[in-house]
Amino acid sequence: MGYSKAADAAIYRLTDELALIQTVDFFTPIVDDPWTYGAIAAANSLSDVYAMGGRPLTALNVAAFPSKQLEPEVIGKILRGGLDKATEAGCLIVGGHTIDSPELLYGMSVTGVVHPQKIVTNEAARPGAALVLTKGLGTGIVTTGLKLGKLPKKDGEAIVQAAVASMAQLNRRGCELMVEAGARAATDITGFGLLGHAYEFAAASGVTFRLDAEACPMLPGALELAGRKVLTGADLRNRAFTHGKVLVRGKVAPALECVLYDAQTSGGLLFAVAPEAADALVERLRAEGHPFARRIGEVLPRGQHDVIVD
Amino acid sequence: MGYSKAADAAIYRLTDELALIQTVDFFTPIVDDPWTYGAIAAANSLSDVYAMGGRPLTALNVAAFPSKQLEPEVIGKILRGGLDKATEAGCLIVGGHTIDSPELLYGMSVTGVVHPQKIVTNEAARPGAALVLTKGLGTGIVTTGLKLGKLPKKDGEAIVQAAVASMAQLNRRGCELMVEAGARAATDITGFGLLGHAYEFAAASGVTFRLDAEACPMLPGALELAGRKVLTGADLRNRAFTHGKVLVRGKVAPALECVLYDAQTSGGLLFAVAPEAADALVERLRAEGHPFARRIGEVLPRGQHDVIVD
Repeated sequence: MGYSKAADAAIYRLTDELALIQTVDFFTPIVDDPWTYGAIAAANSLSDVYAMGGRPLTALNVAAFPSKQLEPEVIGKILRGGLDKATEAGCLIVGGHTIDSPELLYGMSVTGVVHPQKIVTNEAARPGAALVLTKGLGTGIVTTGLKLGKLPKKDGEAIVQAAVASMAQLNRRGCELMVEAGARAATDITGFGLLGHAYEFAAASGVTFRLDAEACPMLPGALELAGRKVLTGADLRNRAFTHGKVLVRGKVAPALECVLYDAQTSGGLLFAVAPEAADALVERLRAEGHPFARRIGEVLPRGQHDVIVD
Repeated sequence: MGYSKAADAAIYRLTDELALIQTVDFFTPIVDDPWTYGAIAAANSLSDVYAMGGRPLTALNVAAFPSKQLEPEVIGKILRGGLDKATEAGCLIVGGHTIDSPELLYGMSVTGVVHPQKIVTNEAARPGAALVLTKGLGTGIVTTGLKLGKLPKKDGEAIVQAAVASMAQLNRRGCELMVEAGARAATDITGFGLLGHAYEFAAASGVTFRLDAEACPMLPGALELAGRKVLTGADLRNRAFTHGKVLVRGKVAPALECVLYDAQTSGGLLFAVAPEAADALVERLRAEGHPFARRIGEVLPRGQHDVIVD
């Protein structure tokens, strides 16, 4: 039995044919609707397993509910959202732990399986590969816009719906298609934003990523909100985190740059794949429920920076 | 692959030779010392694996820290307590999730392994077996006495130390010796108290437990504090939970009865074992770090009540 720690979750090799992937995540509500909150929290927890090319097997609910302020049916809907998403993932919720606490928290501890020879890691990106991102960016910006009442009146509801749909979407199909296409290097995009996770990914692989800012997929409304400085606190943190590691070259518009640094909840997969396979794969992703999937850059031999954005 | 739900944790059969045990638990501090809190929370989380005859393999920290009120070194000590206890259990902490939240919470999601033919469950107690308890009772009463400043002045510190030592102790050796002695039916004693968990255990096995109240091991000070009505809120809850299921016959002293209902944190294992093996096993447990281990009763054919206390 062997053990190794990767960026997204922990791998524990049980036998020559079976490794466990283990991860836990939970957070406070980011949307008002309880079912949606539960579904997003579950999709987010399950994502770490998909980022490693695995299949989620079992999950345990992790929950803190302020029972005096919350109707039992609200709690039921949150758990139902998690259950529905786990079921969609083919993952059994086998238990959990709930306590009464002043702050509402929900998420899951997930165990997945993967063949030890087929583990997808963030250490395996090699020069020459193309980089593909499966979901649009901007969930942090849009949910902040919603919270602060800064969404445009005209398209506000559609903007929220697109972000919510993206967050609640499993990375399952993205993972399956990525693995099928032979990709063995990936990460998922969450709190550090595209550039934070790209930096970690490139550093772990010992390469440089060159990203095309204009090619990066944006959720509806994200760019416009970023232009009005509707940002999360993570914008500054992610810039500090990647300071000296990420080089954004001259021509990238400031609002666009903000979206690239925006903290994502249940974001997409970023993976490296053979360049000749990339375009067909992106097309397939777009046809199978990932309309924002895009080829966004390439892997270069290690240069001065971990990530270069043009 | 099959799945079954047992009382203490979930079992997931991966192969003919390997089943996963999965459990998650966490709670607010029950003692002031941060290392001790972390160690107790870890021992408590790991206990569910031992109650099923398993071996803990990996753990993920589950933590919420009010970072503005808590010094970083306090957080470090809590995590250190958990790490030390996991290490003692031969269990790797492979990750975790920590958030900033107003209420301090700590615990673990634990994955263990067991051979599918050797799973210990709460469904397997058979008439004729002897019942053994591995730890003393009264952790809820003693920690409440500490919180309320009601401990006797003379022995107060020793009373706390004994309860803390009991809570921080792994059920590892208890599990190993129980399995070695051929026991296949067990549970661990936590929030429902001895009588609540005995009821669940007997009901799941379709038998009646007869317990000898005087034989039940008490932590130092617990009986005296219970006599002064130093009780947790769980006393009434556990009596309500077992109403009509547990029959406490006339001669049991009220204070002693309170200890039998006292909610335990990281309590001992209660298991059913062949009567001819019980005394030697208790002796061995007492010699190997479980000085409170006692034979406390026997399994009878199913009668009117789930548990009878004499």
